[in-house]
Amino acid sequence: MLDVALLGTGGMMPLPNRFLTSMLCRFNGRGLMIDAGEGTQVTLKMLGWGCKNIDVICFTHFHADHISGLPGLLLTISNSGRTEPLTLVGPPDLELVVRSICVIARDLMFPLEFRELEARKPSALRLGEFNLRTLPMCHGISCLGYAIEIPRKGRFDAERAKRLPIPVQLWSGLQKNECVEYNGTVYTSDMVLGPERKGLKLCYCTDSRPVSGLADFVRQADLFICEGIYGEEEKKNKAVEYGHMLFSEAAEAARDGEVSELWLTHFSPSLTDPKSFLKNALNIFPNTSVGYDRICKTLYFQDDNGT
Amino acid sequence: MLDVALLGTGGMMPLPNRFLTSMLCRFNGRGLMIDAGEGTQVTLKMLGWGCKNIDVICFTHFHADHISGLPGLLLTISNSGRTEPLTLVGPPDLELVVRSICVIARDLMFPLEFRELEARKPSALRLGEFNLRTLPMCHGISCLGYAIEIPRKGRFDAERAKRLPIPVQLWSGLQKNECVEYNGTVYTSDMVLGPERKGLKLCYCTDSRPVSGLADFVRQADLFICEGIYGEEEKKNKAVEYGHMLFSEAAEAARDGEVSELWLTHFSPSLTDPKSFLKNALNIFPNTSVGYDRICKTLYFQDDNGT
Repeated sequence: MLDVALLGTGGMMPLPNRFLTSMLCRFNGRGLMIDAGEGTQVTLKMLGWGCKNIDVICFTHFHADHISGLPGLLLTISNSGRTEPLTLVGPPDLELVVRSICVIARDLMFPLEFRELEARKPSALRLGEFNLRTLPMCHGISCLGYAIEIPRKGRFDAERAKRLPIPVQLWSGLQKNECVEYNGTVYTSDMVLGPERKGLKLCYCTDSRPVSGLADFVRQADLFICEGIYGEEEKKNKAVEYGHMLFSEAAEAARDGEVSELWLTHFSPSLTDPKSFLKNALNIFPNTSVGYDRICKTLYFQDDNGT
Repeated sequence: MLDVALLGTGGMMPLPNRFLTSMLCRFNGRGLMIDAGEGTQVTLKMLGWGCKNIDVICFTHFHADHISGLPGLLLTISNSGRTEPLTLVGPPDLELVVRSICVIARDLMFPLEFRELEARKPSALRLGEFNLRTLPMCHGISCLGYAIEIPRKGRFDAERAKRLPIPVQLWSGLQKNECVEYNGTVYTSDMVLGPERKGLKLCYCTDSRPVSGLADFVRQADLFICEGIYGEEEKKNKAVEYGHMLFSEAAEAARDGEVSELWLTHFSPSLTDPKSFLKNALNIFPNTSVGYDRICKTLYFQDDNGT
């Protein structure tokens, strides 16, 4: 199962009652965060998931509201006792920007590793438990949308394992996709695992105008987290000017991508009551929620959930 | 009168119920801030004094908890419509550090001006309404304590002005220390102003061990804001190791400097209830308060307050 939380849901500037947009997910105890604005470490502390096990922090882009909290967050992770490397992922110039803003956060107790991705074409990489894919967004500066996928191995066929026969003490290795040897015979997991099953898919897209390929990128995601800076349709010109999406535009992408669920986030400071405009998304994509700080959900593999 | 507020009172990392240590004061509508950590702009918004009229931001030193909020704060000030220059004051390398962390806060609508002060000897400068003096602190890296003084002109002697005689329409200029000319005669303010009267003095010292000269630096301040990272006497070794002061050490400086009032601030995250250790300061300096986020006070010139 994959736990997902929005740490904040605000755009532009942190507010007394709304932290800046950021997402944290964890799978098998390992964490992946996207974006870390001013105050993200505070809402993370309120969430209570800890910070020591965050292995990956991805950045959509380098506007302050998406990265200004990084120096403080890294220092706090360092104080938590982490010593393993932490991987930072983002558009080109990631290392330059991070080294620059972290001039006030020296002497971390763990190394940083950088994965700079293409700004103008999709990328794919595997980091621990997480398969990441990115899609270039449209926001005036280099900006990436993220898809996080947790693949799922095929079902273990115990009857087949017994028939071969494979000794029971080798089963757990084969279940983990390992290749094992016993009495001079080599056994591989494909001998006992069925075809790969449907995994989990989580998508996170902000800040951007709708881009071509967005629906395919998010297709059949279990959860699509998407910016909706304004709820009001009449603010479309402003959304276009600043490179953002309306609630209705996020809902169109969710509908066209046939996702299971949509969470709206990255609200303008002027949008004091996002819920009052939810209908503008519901008309287009019914399973939409207005995100709020520390909203959480657990995504289950299909048959773990009884479905 | 000089309004003073602590925007936050925490050291090291921002907490859900405690912002990072920062001070704002304002005189005649113009603001001066000292330190701006992660979240300072949020507590500033909660305080409600606005941000457009902050003309000066001073930094004690360049540890993240004292400056990490600057990029976001500058962007928010820029969005407020400010176009006049804003002066930043701090130890050597100020401009280098600020330019570095502000790589994510480009396109401000106002220019920044930098005043880098000596790290190893006292400095004095005048910025608008504020007279600033600094004292080198002891914290492992360059660190400055600040004294903010609002001088006060002598009393206007109306009888003397009439006797000279000086036409009434020139009085307001002379009251403002201007030099005025009337019918070929030049009048200067010293003709009609008495001796300079006692002004206001506000001191702010963090992060530091007690330094020689501290008592003289804060002497007779109306308000002395000083760090007390730990309340517990038995944590003295830790305070020494990290270059900080105990409550009792701050109180000793207040007593020796004969200040009017002491506010403690910059509490360790481990110090969840600073008030429970207040007695360790009160024993030494009775007029001590434990600071809290957005504690405010107005300092009055002596006879404005009826004293």
